[in-house]
Amino acid sequence: MLKPREVIPKMKPYIPGKPIGDVKRELGLQNVIKLASNENPLGCSPLAKKAISDMMGELAIYPDGNCTELRQAMVKKLNVKPEQLIFGNGSDEIVELISHVYIEPGDQALIGNVTFSEYQASVELMGGQCIEVPLKNHTFDLDAFYSAITDKTKVIWLCNPNNPTGTIYSGVKQLEFIDAVPKNILVVIDEAYNEYTDDPSYPESINLVDRYDNIIVLRTFSKIYGLASLRLGYGIANPAIIDLLNRIRAPFNVNSVAQSAALAALEDRDFLSKSKQNNDEGKKYLYAAFDEMGLEYIPTQANFIMVNVDRDSRQIFRDLLTHGIIVRSGEIFKMDNWIRVTIGTPEQNEAFISALKEVL
Amino acid sequence: MLKPREVIPKMKPYIPGKPIGDVKRELGLQNVIKLASNENPLGCSPLAKKAISDMMGELAIYPDGNCTELRQAMVKKLNVKPEQLIFGNGSDEIVELISHVYIEPGDQALIGNVTFSEYQASVELMGGQCIEVPLKNHTFDLDAFYSAITDKTKVIWLCNPNNPTGTIYSGVKQLEFIDAVPKNILVVIDEAYNEYTDDPSYPESINLVDRYDNIIVLRTFSKIYGLASLRLGYGIANPAIIDLLNRIRAPFNVNSVAQSAALAALEDRDFLSKSKQNNDEGKKYLYAAFDEMGLEYIPTQANFIMVNVDRDSRQIFRDLLTHGIIVRSGEIFKMDNWIRVTIGTPEQNEAFISALKEVL
Repeated sequence: MLKPREVIPKMKPYIPGKPIGDVKRELGLQNVIKLASNENPLGCSPLAKKAISDMMGELAIYPDGNCTELRQAMVKKLNVKPEQLIFGNGSDEIVELISHVYIEPGDQALIGNVTFSEYQASVELMGGQCIEVPLKNHTFDLDAFYSAITDKTKVIWLCNPNNPTGTIYSGVKQLEFIDAVPKNILVVIDEAYNEYTDDPSYPESINLVDRYDNIIVLRTFSKIYGLASLRLGYGIANPAIIDLLNRIRAPFNVNSVAQSAALAALEDRDFLSKSKQNNDEGKKYLYAAFDEMGLEYIPTQANFIMVNVDRDSRQIFRDLLTHGIIVRSGEIFKMDNWIRVTIGTPEQNEAFISALKEVL
Repeated sequence: MLKPREVIPKMKPYIPGKPIGDVKRELGLQNVIKLASNENPLGCSPLAKKAISDMMGELAIYPDGNCTELRQAMVKKLNVKPEQLIFGNGSDEIVELISHVYIEPGDQALIGNVTFSEYQASVELMGGQCIEVPLKNHTFDLDAFYSAITDKTKVIWLCNPNNPTGTIYSGVKQLEFIDAVPKNILVVIDEAYNEYTDDPSYPESINLVDRYDNIIVLRTFSKIYGLASLRLGYGIANPAIIDLLNRIRAPFNVNSVAQSAALAALEDRDFLSKSKQNNDEGKKYLYAAFDEMGLEYIPTQANFIMVNVDRDSRQIFRDLLTHGIIVRSGEIFKMDNWIRVTIGTPEQNEAFISALKEVL
């Protein structure tokens, strides 16, 4: 009998959200609005689409495993060295690579309770154990993280803004924390939503990579750049960490379409500022609507809002579905009475609020 | 000091081939022909390109993690059950997932000497050891594989046709082998090049998945389908194996463009038959040219040929580069005096032969 490694059968398979098409068919709906995955409701830059059209003659050719052109562009944009960058099939892949490089059986990793679920999956795959550090006012409490460090701690997973709460900790706090953390522990700073922040206390984390040998910053093209379908994330760290991650990544981990589209999207500041503005306006609209409805919500620095619906969130999720609105029910985040809604276009936000009023 | 797992620094980073653009710039060449990566010289199906154009409005949306539509199409095409399929970011990713699920420190895996390099990398990442089984007449010797099995053997990596030799073993041999292999060992049958074979003794491996709980067949859209840039491979195995692999894959491992393009490409039998015909004709042309030049070559069942140039292959590689032809030098396959050339279009094949004649 063929036996897997002991941890494997204990791992929970990812249960994907329903495709919009399935929801339409099953519920007989014409229009379905998905506000469940923190995607950019404005789509992506037209320059990205053009770049894809322009490379249709090269689909049979393997990707550039080094992401040469994109790397050069990112080096300029971020003011980093080429050897401080790694690209992945979404930042998910870089999360996996980090655990593959650093976690062995017996190691511990610290994660927020609650935060993005892939950190835990990657640690457990390598036989490590995750220690959950409670949030304070729905916000990462770096003092509590520091107190949770033991001699078994190997990796600390920060998420700023945090998914699913949308909250941030400050640059001052982060610097104090990184200074205090023992240098044999890797601090991962996942900043997937950084472009949506507008709190001036938000950290400038990339600057820290030159000064600390034990941090890695993660970013993505899946959120404000609107390229989630293509899978492209990146990590910024000192060259020694990047070298180790590079040793174990697949040679052609980032597809060519993602590389071309991201390179073009980088140039389109207009699209980024429109996306930020849409989010800011949507945020204001939703705050006002929640206030009017007397619903508690967590002020967000990202493109989604957690709102307390004061009922079983699975039921509210299902009720919203019948109105053609897909959100995330909070029970998957251990926040039973909350739902997480992505900030959409004005029309989508209005449709969501209108449906939520009917449902509640 | 931050320490990686012990095996990581020993792993060799992948050194990517030079992008065609770099070769052009460095050598001042207008035209460069890449016959190094076994890509389809005819490109890909126009239906795949159209499918990509048609989904440009959905780039901001996360991929369907279940590959629902592609899965349904493959179920029909291959006559398998949906739960017998897994899709990956290239079949490379499925190779990695297999080792992540099954290999622990102390385990051994059998690989051909010589074969595709990613099997070994994935095994070593998980702390396993690869035992190399010599080829016989450049061909997988399944009797030798059987003799190499010990109580530490966990995975056997077959590659049929084998990369880089292009040779096959027969279906009769494979069946005898699988019957004999202890059922606690996984047999991986990598058939990336299966669509190019024309030897009637070539196995029908997918049929075996219903009968054996310890095999997995790997296929890809990177070769005859001409979609290497997009990264899409798949595995076929019994549902218990697929379930374990699914538990540890990233939720959105296959990008949406790859899913759409592959779905469309599946339908284009005309493109596949043209690609096969081009390969068959190119093979004949190259055999005749090698015969005329008195060069030994390994008759191939794939879309590449190993040819013995009887000189240092690195030198021949460099000399061919100056003529604008990129091939693979054999020293990376421990076949020092050989080069591996992908079968191209008639024009590409002629340019290669003409350059090779000048170089030798």
